[in-house]
Amino acid sequence: MSMDIEARLATVGLTLPDAPSPAANYLPYTIAKGLLFMAGQAPVRDGKYAFTGRVGNEVTVEDAQAAARLCGLNILAQVKSAVAGDWSRVKRCVRICGYISSAPGFFDQPKVLDGCSDLMVQALGDAGRHARSALGVAALRGNVPVVIDAVFELAD
Amino acid sequence: MSMDIEARLATVGLTLPDAPSPAANYLPYTIAKGLLFMAGQAPVRDGKYAFTGRVGNEVTVEDAQAAARLCGLNILAQVKSAVAGDWSRVKRCVRICGYISSAPGFFDQPKVLDGCSDLMVQALGDAGRHARSALGVAALRGNVPVVIDAVFELAD
Amino acid sequence: MSMDIEARLATVGLTLPDAPSPAANYLPYTIAKGLLFMAGQAPVRDGKYAFTGRVGNEVTVEDAQAAARLCGLNILAQVKSAVAGDWSRVKRCVRICGYISSAPGFFDQPKVLDGCSDLMVQALGDAGRHARSALGVAALRGNVPVVIDAVFELAD
Repeated sequence: MSMDIEARLATVGLTLPDAPSPAANYLPYTIAKGLLFMAGQAPVRDGKYAFTGRVGNEVTVEDAQAAARLCGLNILAQVKSAVAGDWSRVKRCVRICGYISSAPGFFDQPKVLDGCSDLMVQALGDAGRHARSALGVAALRGNVPVVIDAVFELAD
Repeated sequence: MSMDIEARLATVGLTLPDAPSPAANYLPYTIAKGLLFMAGQAPVRDGKYAFTGRVGNEVTVEDAQAAARLCGLNILAQVKSAVAGDWSRVKRCVRICGYISSAPGFFDQPKVLDGCSDLMVQALGDAGRHARSALGVAALRGNVPVVIDAVFELAD
Repeated sequence: MSMDIEARLATVGLTLPDAPSPAANYLPYTIAKGLLFMAGQAPVRDGKYAFTGRVGNEVTVEDAQAAARLCGLNILAQVKSAVAGDWSRVKRCVRICGYISSAPGFFDQPKVLDGCSDLMVQALGDAGRHARSALGVAALRGNVPVVIDAVFELAD
């Protein structure tokens, strides 16, 4: 993968945040057998939840997409930390799973997750294209509308 | 794995559909380090959702099992596409995760997911036996009752 | 990893149960490419669900943490079975995903999952530290409050 990921993001007006630290007995990511497993990332900005509420109720699809994109930025920040800034060690985004806190009658979970999927392709090009699942859950920590976890493949 | 997967399915009256294409910036599956990661598959038949509603409410357990089996057929169709029809490249079904849109008070998620688990064993024999999780979610795209994702192991 | 996992657990008053057997066409775990994929484990003790109900409603956070710890003990029992008791074959806990049956307005899913995360570190030390996602779901089999699945890395 070319090393211009942050330059690519800059062209769409995005910058990578610092990688948030988890608060308990777990890690933001682990690496096993060349796969990078990312802990669920929330729409955190500057240490605070930037969005709260359920999609289809207090949160619009547009805001939920922005929240999913913010989750994606935090995922990329963690990936950068995992490879110590050397993006050539990242082979591809393998899979993301998006958990969307959904009000009754809200069935557009994929549209929400597009906020993250599109970001991955903006950042990584073809290497950002991934398998995914988009799921409507009952509730998420801190009442955030979206949490996304991911698996990346590292170069051999 | 022997190459008679479609013959096996025919004996139970099933045929593999064409592999559905995703509608956005993602892929139906990715391959990394010899593992095939499948995007969440819905109960799609001929390009349309064949079942809608929540299990325990508008959808019976029997219909939900049929929906889970249809998700499984779509998974197998994607696997076939991933290995270009060469089933000898598929070593086993490693894991499935079933997301079941559940009405309040519905607690038989495993019974629903059996529709897919049984299909995997019908199709692949012992190589179809897998680890799994069966979860009751709040809502799924297009109001379908079941979405299932999966991981397969490919031959070295 | 040192082989004193059960001794470590004994120091905090815990013993590993026998590994529960699944009831249908699936397996408690599978191994592929050096990764151990664990089926979702429920808070089963002596063959029965030890906790039922939704967290934030019938089930307190403290009881849900105990339920998550019990899921974790069942996970470790399955790991032990997978490596035939030889803990030196277990390299690390890679990832857990906790599904918490959540009453409306309950947003402390991570606090519940700490019951399992803390256990992993008590049992395995640094090798027990993992990536994770904590999710609030609508319902789980048998009305249990928590199901947890996991991925472990095996030694080469």
